Amino acid sequence: MSRSLVPEPLTAEAFASFGDVIEASDRAERLPINYGWTTRYNDLARLDVGDGGGHAIVSLFRARPLEPPLLKVFERHPAGSQAFMPLHGRPYLVAVAPAGDFDPAAVRLFRAAPSQGVNYAKGVWHHFLLALEAESDFLVIDRAGPGDNLDEVFLAEADQILADA
Amino acid sequence: MSRSLVPEPLTAEAFASFGDVIEASDRAERLPINYGWTTRYNDLARLDVGDGGGHAIVSLFRARPLEPPLLKVFERHPAGSQAFMPLHGRPYLVAVAPAGDFDPAAVRLFRAAPSQGVNYAKGVWHHFLLALEAESDFLVIDRAGPGDNLDEVFLAEADQILADA
Repeated sequence: MSRSLVPEPLTAEAFASFGDVIEASDRAERLPINYGWTTRYNDLARLDVGDGGGHAIVSLFRARPLEPPLLKVFERHPAGSQAFMPLHGRPYLVAVAPAGDFDPAAVRLFRAAPSQGVNYAKGVWHHFLLALEAESDFLVIDRAGPGDNLDEVFLAEADQILADA
Repeated sequence: MSRSLVPEPLTAEAFASFGDVIEASDRAERLPINYGWTTRYNDLARLDVGDGGGHAIVSLFRARPLEPPLLKVFERHPAGSQAFMPLHGRPYLVAVAPAGDFDPAAVRLFRAAPSQGVNYAKGVWHHFLLALEAESDFLVIDRAGPGDNLDEVFLAEADQILADA
């Protein structure tokens, strides 16, 4: 009853309308610092957390792989961006849909490399963490502050998506 | 002419006067989210970046190991905290000294596990990134904004420290 999707490779271009890809790419502003011992890839994610008195916080998320990888629920944070950086050296999946009214036909599925983080722009629909292979840790930078900052949508069975990872 | 220091294990208690250890420990606020698939270790670092119109930014630092690991220069950021999370699965070194006038006798040297990040509190003296073994990437959350946010101190030869890692 569900449909299946094969993940696309995650690239900054393909992801641009959903947020940022956090990666040490040649397109970043690169600054030599620390007397040449370090390269700084500067300011890679648009943190957007100040609405309604919000501020950025740093957390760790420890996620188990979905078994099976059937996407049934999407969420969005209307008051802030949310960034994820993998700490585990494994690929993972990223499922998104444009901000606004949720459209199940508009879901995009990406396979992120172990070196790639993502920052969901405020209001962009996304599935919760889709670790692969094993329990995996992510560093997360998102908004804390007053007000409700979570909307969820539950997909009808025909709209559910089996990730063909 | 220098002295040598053997690193201590990095613990939240030992590091408390310098900032935060970012780790998935039992002492953190742990929230089950994502229908049980994820545990959130919540709000692990005191981001302190708002001085003088500052805000948090996310960057990647790619650091080569110091060869030899001789500590000659410390820095501090008077206007903001600075957080580092290792992405490479290798230990690294953390050298700090209390805020205020730099005291070379007060330097503490820690060995961080691959799963541990650190957040230097505003004004705490620290050596720049001390990767071990190989070139290593770190996610960094620090302050961008108006004004100068870097002080450095260069150690006299007798005060330089050889990290006995």
